[in-house]
Amino acid sequence: MILENINSPKDVKSLRINELKELSEEIRELIIDVVSKNGGHLSSNLGVVELTLALHYVFDFSRDKLIFDVSHQAYTHKIITGRKDSFQTLRTFEGISGYANPLESPYDAFIAGHASTSLALALGFVIARKLKNEDYDVVALIGDGALTGGEAYEGLNNLGHLGEKVIIVLNDNGMSISRNVGAISKYLARLRTSKSYVMLKKMLGKNFARKFKLALKELLLPNILFEEFGFTYIGPVEGHDLTELIDTFERVKNLNGPVVVHVVTKKGYGYKLSEEKPDKFHSAEPFDFENGKGVSKDHVTFSDVFGKTLVELAEKDKRIVAITAAMPDGTKTSYIRERFPERFIDVGIAEQCAVTTGASLAKEGFKPFVAIYSTFLQRALDQLIHDVSILSLPVVFAIDRAGIVSDDGPTHQGIFDIAYLSMIPNFVIAAPKDAFELKGLMSLALDSDVPFALRYPKDIAQDGFSKRFFLEIGKGEIIKSGTELTIVTLGPVFYEALKALEYFEKSGYSVGLINAIFAKPFDKELILKEALRSKRVLTVEDGIKRGGFGENLKAYLSDFGVEVTNIAIDDFMPEQGKREDLLKKYGISSENIVKVGVRLIEKKA
Amino acid sequence: MILENINSPKDVKSLRINELKELSEEIRELIIDVVSKNGGHLSSNLGVVELTLALHYVFDFSRDKLIFDVSHQAYTHKIITGRKDSFQTLRTFEGISGYANPLESPYDAFIAGHASTSLALALGFVIARKLKNEDYDVVALIGDGALTGGEAYEGLNNLGHLGEKVIIVLNDNGMSISRNVGAISKYLARLRTSKSYVMLKKMLGKNFARKFKLALKELLLPNILFEEFGFTYIGPVEGHDLTELIDTFERVKNLNGPVVVHVVTKKGYGYKLSEEKPDKFHSAEPFDFENGKGVSKDHVTFSDVFGKTLVELAEKDKRIVAITAAMPDGTKTSYIRERFPERFIDVGIAEQCAVTTGASLAKEGFKPFVAIYSTFLQRALDQLIHDVSILSLPVVFAIDRAGIVSDDGPTHQGIFDIAYLSMIPNFVIAAPKDAFELKGLMSLALDSDVPFALRYPKDIAQDGFSKRFFLEIGKGEIIKSGTELTIVTLGPVFYEALKALEYFEKSGYSVGLINAIFAKPFDKELILKEALRSKRVLTVEDGIKRGGFGENLKAYLSDFGVEVTNIAIDDFMPEQGKREDLLKKYGISSENIVKVGVRLIEKKA
Repeated sequence: MILENINSPKDVKSLRINELKELSEEIRELIIDVVSKNGGHLSSNLGVVELTLALHYVFDFSRDKLIFDVSHQAYTHKIITGRKDSFQTLRTFEGISGYANPLESPYDAFIAGHASTSLALALGFVIARKLKNEDYDVVALIGDGALTGGEAYEGLNNLGHLGEKVIIVLNDNGMSISRNVGAISKYLARLRTSKSYVMLKKMLGKNFARKFKLALKELLLPNILFEEFGFTYIGPVEGHDLTELIDTFERVKNLNGPVVVHVVTKKGYGYKLSEEKPDKFHSAEPFDFENGKGVSKDHVTFSDVFGKTLVELAEKDKRIVAITAAMPDGTKTSYIRERFPERFIDVGIAEQCAVTTGASLAKEGFKPFVAIYSTFLQRALDQLIHDVSILSLPVVFAIDRAGIVSDDGPTHQGIFDIAYLSMIPNFVIAAPKDAFELKGLMSLALDSDVPFALRYPKDIAQDGFSKRFFLEIGKGEIIKSGTELTIVTLGPVFYEALKALEYFEKSGYSVGLINAIFAKPFDKELILKEALRSKRVLTVEDGIKRGGFGENLKAYLSDFGVEVTNIAIDDFMPEQGKREDLLKKYGISSENIVKVGVRLIEKKA
Repeated sequence: MILENINSPKDVKSLRINELKELSEEIRELIIDVVSKNGGHLSSNLGVVELTLALHYVFDFSRDKLIFDVSHQAYTHKIITGRKDSFQTLRTFEGISGYANPLESPYDAFIAGHASTSLALALGFVIARKLKNEDYDVVALIGDGALTGGEAYEGLNNLGHLGEKVIIVLNDNGMSISRNVGAISKYLARLRTSKSYVMLKKMLGKNFARKFKLALKELLLPNILFEEFGFTYIGPVEGHDLTELIDTFERVKNLNGPVVVHVVTKKGYGYKLSEEKPDKFHSAEPFDFENGKGVSKDHVTFSDVFGKTLVELAEKDKRIVAITAAMPDGTKTSYIRERFPERFIDVGIAEQCAVTTGASLAKEGFKPFVAIYSTFLQRALDQLIHDVSILSLPVVFAIDRAGIVSDDGPTHQGIFDIAYLSMIPNFVIAAPKDAFELKGLMSLALDSDVPFALRYPKDIAQDGFSKRFFLEIGKGEIIKSGTELTIVTLGPVFYEALKALEYFEKSGYSVGLINAIFAKPFDKELILKEALRSKRVLTVEDGIKRGGFGENLKAYLSDFGVEVTNIAIDDFMPEQGKREDLLKKYGISSENIVKVGVRLIEKKA
């Protein structure tokens, strides 16, 4: 075992090529082993083992900066930078993160979790180096998927303009999460199969000029895009050939100015099942090593319900179009892609474009369903305001992964959407408590003529406690009236309150329960009536407190002398862990509802 | 006068070239006349008179879509699409907008005010056309400045990939607002001066192949970038030559697939003073036609104070770096650019990049001051959360044009920043009431080790009513205690409350006043003390109510039985008008503070 003796990148530098190859295999085994148990990003990490080793072999990231884009591909880097033993705790509560984080290791230059930030970060590191008059290398490792995001282009544009030394390693596996989209992907595909400039120049030899015309397309077209941005282009480099990688990086280290090194890797490399189905293993649940099958039980998630219902609705309503930003599988818009491919649009990791394109489609009379994870929709706040809200266009937002998210940690928590949507005029915001309600709300959204946001977590969707056939914008659902306390919930946390209600009933407390359904406009009439009855209200939501649903309700009810207490995330960024555990920890649980509820009642009794 | 008879684009189509030229001159006169009185975007509009006429001459925008990017260059379009007479009301209250807006005319395909959205909008229109099986043309008119924004690239990438017919007219004047930045600008500069492919092919004649090598750079390099994205590139076209423009568009109309028409225009064309200083007349105040001098009185604005103080601080503190997103003049970071050019970064219209680059500079020990208008910072919400807040990096945000903004209308209102920043953990949010306080807060921000946002309006900065030398994070300033009502203000609306205070004093009401200074963390101790004394609190802020400072305060104080009333923008998008008038209209004024204050006191008395 070579890995046994690798405790820091220094130990990698002393290895011979053969040993590095062996080390790659050992690292792959470790990654597959841990990810099969803990879940995680398998394919992307298997694809960059050699690339990461070669970078550490050539550079010294105790002083040079290695900036991962998205950084879900940092496992090899973590393993060889002192986190080999703790790697078993990957993505678990208090364990090491599935992403880069400087709080975890000085070898992690920055934190990431969202795509397309590495080049703008590199710009800051390069300017800092210049102002401090230092000479470390700045290396940004960006995938072809992340290159579909606008911020990557903004960084590229500025780095090329600045002209300072910077090394962009383009990890090109031809996939973002699902199959890549956009002209830039087609371009890279041509580039991948092209011969390098240097090679062709050699081949053509003395009659270079004469043969030029023939070779023109081969020669110039491919690499010119990056050159136009002011970069020297090197590539394509075979991403699993350690010798070629190390040679290239040694050469690049001595170049000046901005350089793009185009490395072609295979997602899932070295594990047959993930090579064959890399998107299945992009962000995998725990699985069985032998057959690759998930070990979790089958269950219906909110995403499933959304995806299936959307197809059902689209069968009947031709105005429906689905838009996703590189998440067809995660959001289950893959279902409509299969059924109505012409009514499915994947814009790449380009949330801004997704929202604006939705806006003009709505302007033309279509009913776009824009399905984006809560944390990624943050990218498009301005578009929500500027392109959707001002004209009050009927775009439907299917906000998946809202609330606390398992395993991915702070960068992926979907806790802000209620707050940032609530402040925007004209928006309707709803949170279904279960599968039945999500379906109903989708129909309602389809019939509405204003922007309509539906938020739901990455979680099992209950079949439905109560089945109300007539949902109405701004109308909540009363489950029970109470004279001592009224609980108002938003979304599936309802079921926690329902459990708490059992306790209250058994213990003789008169506690009411309202399923708010709508955060905006919320059901003022119903909530006020019940609040005046009980004089005390306890709100429960799976999101940030400040600017959230509960706070808004509290401000409203305070005019009527009602005492309101909010259970929500109080001004911190939730850590890494299982959704269930974190919700418990933060008090968004039946136990805490009982505890706080009893305290409130007893205090005044 | 030809313009007299132009009542719709149809009337343009019947004109001969000579008449079109004459019309251009008449339109220019009208634009200069109105803008010199009302203010507005002069240079960009003078630059596109011929271009706009040529587009209307060739296309039929009663069915074809003309999508303006930013749309501040739509004046000619407005004048010839039935808004000639109302053009005198440009940018005034209840007058016509300085931007495109479909609510104003069916000829305006969409609304815009922020840059870089036109291509994503075009994507939606193109997909809609395909799904409806219609055949209208989709024309996006985008400036070279807007092309520095990431969303433009996202749109370009998707349009190129889709391959459907779309016409991008690149209006290249070599400027965004100030001088353009980024590799893409350099690229366009090369392109502008290059000869077109067609021309060169003609020139080279029969020996095309032999001369190819020599002509290579001239021929291929320039136009390949757009070709790589899947577009046919046509250009450069002389943007003030009506014949060339019309010929080109006639040809382009018959092409299939995505096309970029590169039109070279001169910003400010036809008015000597604005040709010479186009950035001065980018977004101009009313001015004197003869000498171009502004007719407004000189006054010190918050932007001035910020710009000058930043230079003073930078003299002493080498860690200070200024970052702007194409707004050096507006934000007055132009001052530090002049004094310390190496510590000034303009990333182009790329707010996302500005924030992320600030984050990595802060990580390296620098003190970046990121100066962006409130409405444009919406573009970078995700970066504020993901790149700044999670690691709690000490980036300072100088949020200019916060609150109600004069003349520009709904797309530019800076009313959301308090709400969207308040929800983010780790952020400090402060709003200086005057020049003295802004300076003090800048020093405080410099010394702080967390993200620090300063928000101030586009308005005169009072010299300073009270001069407190020791500001402290989270500490407000008490002006007066009251037993019947406590007014709590945030930012320069303080001076409205001060005026109201005079009335209250004269009338014998005991009303207190607190200048909150900080929206987060706000001064709980001071505010609670005074609130308990008066039992009634009235908050005043220049921002959206929901999720804002007042609502948050209300939620806090309601636990103590204090009645809180909020004066703020209540869930609508403010219209177009003068800041002063709109503030009055929405009740953010001394008159309304008196009115509401008296009502609150009398109600309970």
